Amino acid sequence: MNQRIYPINTEQPWPRNQWWIAATAAEVSRTPMERTILDEPVVLYRTENGDPVAMAGLCPHRGYPMAHAKVVGDALECAYHGFTFGCEGSCTRIPSQEKVPENWKIRTYPVVQRWEWIWIWTGDPALADSAQIPDLWCLGKPGWRSTVGRRATLEARYPLLIDNLFDLSHLNYIHASLVGDQTAIVQTPVEMSQQADGCFRLTRHVHNAPFGGYFAFQFPHKAAEAPAIYTELFSIYYGPCLILSGGPFFVEGGERLGESSFVHGITPETRASTHYWSAITRDFRLDDDAFDAAMLANDAAVRDQDNVALAQIERHAHRLDVQGELSALQDAGAIRVRRLLAAQIDAEAKRVPRA
Amino acid sequence: MNQRIYPINTEQPWPRNQWWIAATAAEVSRTPMERTILDEPVVLYRTENGDPVAMAGLCPHRGYPMAHAKVVGDALECAYHGFTFGCEGSCTRIPSQEKVPENWKIRTYPVVQRWEWIWIWTGDPALADSAQIPDLWCLGKPGWRSTVGRRATLEARYPLLIDNLFDLSHLNYIHASLVGDQTAIVQTPVEMSQQADGCFRLTRHVHNAPFGGYFAFQFPHKAAEAPAIYTELFSIYYGPCLILSGGPFFVEGGERLGESSFVHGITPETRASTHYWSAITRDFRLDDDAFDAAMLANDAAVRDQDNVALAQIERHAHRLDVQGELSALQDAGAIRVRRLLAAQIDAEAKRVPRA
Amino acid sequence: MNQRIYPINTEQPWPRNQWWIAATAAEVSRTPMERTILDEPVVLYRTENGDPVAMAGLCPHRGYPMAHAKVVGDALECAYHGFTFGCEGSCTRIPSQEKVPENWKIRTYPVVQRWEWIWIWTGDPALADSAQIPDLWCLGKPGWRSTVGRRATLEARYPLLIDNLFDLSHLNYIHASLVGDQTAIVQTPVEMSQQADGCFRLTRHVHNAPFGGYFAFQFPHKAAEAPAIYTELFSIYYGPCLILSGGPFFVEGGERLGESSFVHGITPETRASTHYWSAITRDFRLDDDAFDAAMLANDAAVRDQDNVALAQIERHAHRLDVQGELSALQDAGAIRVRRLLAAQIDAEAKRVPRA
Repeated sequence: MNQRIYPINTEQPWPRNQWWIAATAAEVSRTPMERTILDEPVVLYRTENGDPVAMAGLCPHRGYPMAHAKVVGDALECAYHGFTFGCEGSCTRIPSQEKVPENWKIRTYPVVQRWEWIWIWTGDPALADSAQIPDLWCLGKPGWRSTVGRRATLEARYPLLIDNLFDLSHLNYIHASLVGDQTAIVQTPVEMSQQADGCFRLTRHVHNAPFGGYFAFQFPHKAAEAPAIYTELFSIYYGPCLILSGGPFFVEGGERLGESSFVHGITPETRASTHYWSAITRDFRLDDDAFDAAMLANDAAVRDQDNVALAQIERHAHRLDVQGELSALQDAGAIRVRRLLAAQIDAEAKRVPRA
Repeated sequence: MNQRIYPINTEQPWPRNQWWIAATAAEVSRTPMERTILDEPVVLYRTENGDPVAMAGLCPHRGYPMAHAKVVGDALECAYHGFTFGCEGSCTRIPSQEKVPENWKIRTYPVVQRWEWIWIWTGDPALADSAQIPDLWCLGKPGWRSTVGRRATLEARYPLLIDNLFDLSHLNYIHASLVGDQTAIVQTPVEMSQQADGCFRLTRHVHNAPFGGYFAFQFPHKAAEAPAIYTELFSIYYGPCLILSGGPFFVEGGERLGESSFVHGITPETRASTHYWSAITRDFRLDDDAFDAAMLANDAAVRDQDNVALAQIERHAHRLDVQGELSALQDAGAIRVRRLLAAQIDAEAKRVPRA
Repeated sequence: MNQRIYPINTEQPWPRNQWWIAATAAEVSRTPMERTILDEPVVLYRTENGDPVAMAGLCPHRGYPMAHAKVVGDALECAYHGFTFGCEGSCTRIPSQEKVPENWKIRTYPVVQRWEWIWIWTGDPALADSAQIPDLWCLGKPGWRSTVGRRATLEARYPLLIDNLFDLSHLNYIHASLVGDQTAIVQTPVEMSQQADGCFRLTRHVHNAPFGGYFAFQFPHKAAEAPAIYTELFSIYYGPCLILSGGPFFVEGGERLGESSFVHGITPETRASTHYWSAITRDFRLDDDAFDAAMLANDAAVRDQDNVALAQIERHAHRLDVQGELSALQDAGAIRVRRLLAAQIDAEAKRVPRA
């Protein structure tokens, strides 16, 4: 089977040697839960010490979902015939016999809890290096206030979300009802650069955006004055698992008003659906709880608009390979990111030939 | 992929160089609407002058459904990134750049409004000739009263509806509850002929049908007398898009009572569903509004019975290629029509080889 | 298409030269009903004499479901065009013509009513031998009380149910809430044998099971004494259509308390669903109607737990071919049965090459 999914023209639909967000820290408890990741069921739970564990979702004996298993100490006892597997994967007990064959194992996944998420490594465990988890400088940094939001299910393949986030001109269309007139964004050309950390960054230096909409929402103390706004609107690609968008805001030619950024955690669920994780962060109005709640609500509403829009494309995505695309200058960033993603998948496919 | 759909044994499931009903005139407005035709999304709207327009349903930029687009003058502005296409298909505006590449286009379809329907040509635009839209002599003809009915979704492939309409002996079974005893139809052999306009016509010269049922409904002034009825029950094939059935009614050996006909507009929606358009027409009781309403209601009920029945066949249609068919004399007309349809598809496939 | 379904590694998913339960006797009446068996629609009804009839579910004329047919004497008149077929399958009437072609037939299936079920033979009629219907000695035997239960739809492929019934150690996990602590079963090794009638039998000689749970439910007069229990827990394979499980119960080292058995009728509905028929039988408390009702209710609850559990496996069954299996000593019986089933299918495939 050709595994490619539009618009990623690769042999497999996603990289496996990759960290992804598997769950919020709060979701994972002593009660096992199932989550589908890269189209595979995974079971998540915590040991007695509170360490997160991720195992293959199906018992290797007869395929019963491990999400129904009983936690016994740090191990999981399958709910069908009681076969038990330790948190590192080895079979520790077959209730009907004394001896357990030596190499009986269930697959386990490297996991790391960072910020308020559990990260999972879906590839070769020998290659798992938690240093490769994106360094979200803005989360928990002094002088910044961050709030982790919800998980939403996007009913669309994950590359459509990446495309979306690397052309923020859609703010003026899909999100006009929430963010106001953003014609200035649309009319500003995109600039591509590489950050010091190697990440690809797309920036629009947006000048003379009219005050109002999201600017007024963030900086209401400027409402009487209503200055034109200058913003450096960016999207940063930390890999397919995480994109940061946002920017600092200035009075045009004048004072810095503050910066707000939006974390987009992306985990393929199936070939046609995506776990979409959110967090927001800012360096102004740090003590304003009501604003924080409002910002989070607004962020959820914006993402809901994207979820609805991208699901409309997914409905027809099987046609897009045939239809092709017309690409404009504004698409340069998204196309660059597609290439980075395709190169990552291809490099991995070369290293680990598929059966 | 083999495109054939039982019982049409052709490389593709339908002709493309063909006019079809896309919508009722009333459905199409200044607000774009999406309709699936030959398994493709199509967007329909009207220009400022009221002319109907049909465009491909997906934006050629990134595939967003054009049904959500904003009408700007005669053009559509895509709701994702604002790319704008004129009613003749050329891209007229990319909001983020001055210049629009010359040959950027969205596919448009030839459309014609005739009677109360919008007709669409799904094939090579160079071959579109509105003179090929079936000439429904009975609609709008002096001395006739016609009423266009609704669109229904038939949850079955379109050839099953054609089959159905070319063996009206089913009136005595599927529709017995609505049309009464029609054993006379069943027992009358079918006659095949070619009309002056080239259309294939199937006729049953039905003699001595007992008064009652649909005859009594149409001609209640004959109830006391209850004469035996003679009718020339016909089905005319104007192509896969339109079939006319009906006939003139006579007192057996005596006076002509009138003629009523039923227009069956047929547009493939998907490989397993069909837009089914209806109109009724007659040359008697012209001023009787109550009868017109009753006739329309009865017609809808009859078509609903067919819709339910054919959906039962569709549910199992994948088995029918394997099962085969037994055909009787009464099936000669339907089989002839299948051959006309298959020949049309094959001729087109020869002219325009598929990629 | 490869027809195999995990875990049966054969060219086709089920044997066809096989008797299966098609319906309860009470379900089949003078009103035709449709039932899907081996992924084919079958219509069932009774003749004027009350004999059960099974026919192909689709009219050989144009594929209309025969479940909507009218019973005319012993024949079925199709509800689309009135083609009529006698209970032995030959076309007896085409309403539109005098003569019926000689060899026009609809497929009929050999059927036999036995106990309270209608059995159907899905293979070559020439090979149908009602002596091959499993001899359920316990149903209707003097000194035994038997009650036929319901049909349930198991949303899983039928081999998963066979697997389930040939490793009753799952009683201690899936059914612990209903049958109590059955650790003794789990810890007892399985013994395989061949019955005098040639059927494969799996037995666990379970010693010193603690009184309580299902034992207390069956033998409440022993509650005060609460003796340890010895039971010979068996599963008998009468073919893929029927499995009997149960066993006699004894006070450990002492008196026989009685025997109860559970009939598992299994009929593939589709590749992913199964008709699951039940009956219960016992040789004690014969006149206790309340106990009979309680036993039937308990039995239904147990089977519902299996239905829920196996549907969880079916949801992921497409992964199990890839995942493979780990098998323990306790799996020997189920694996033996899989081989018997696979050999039956392969032998049949050799005799009747598939087109």
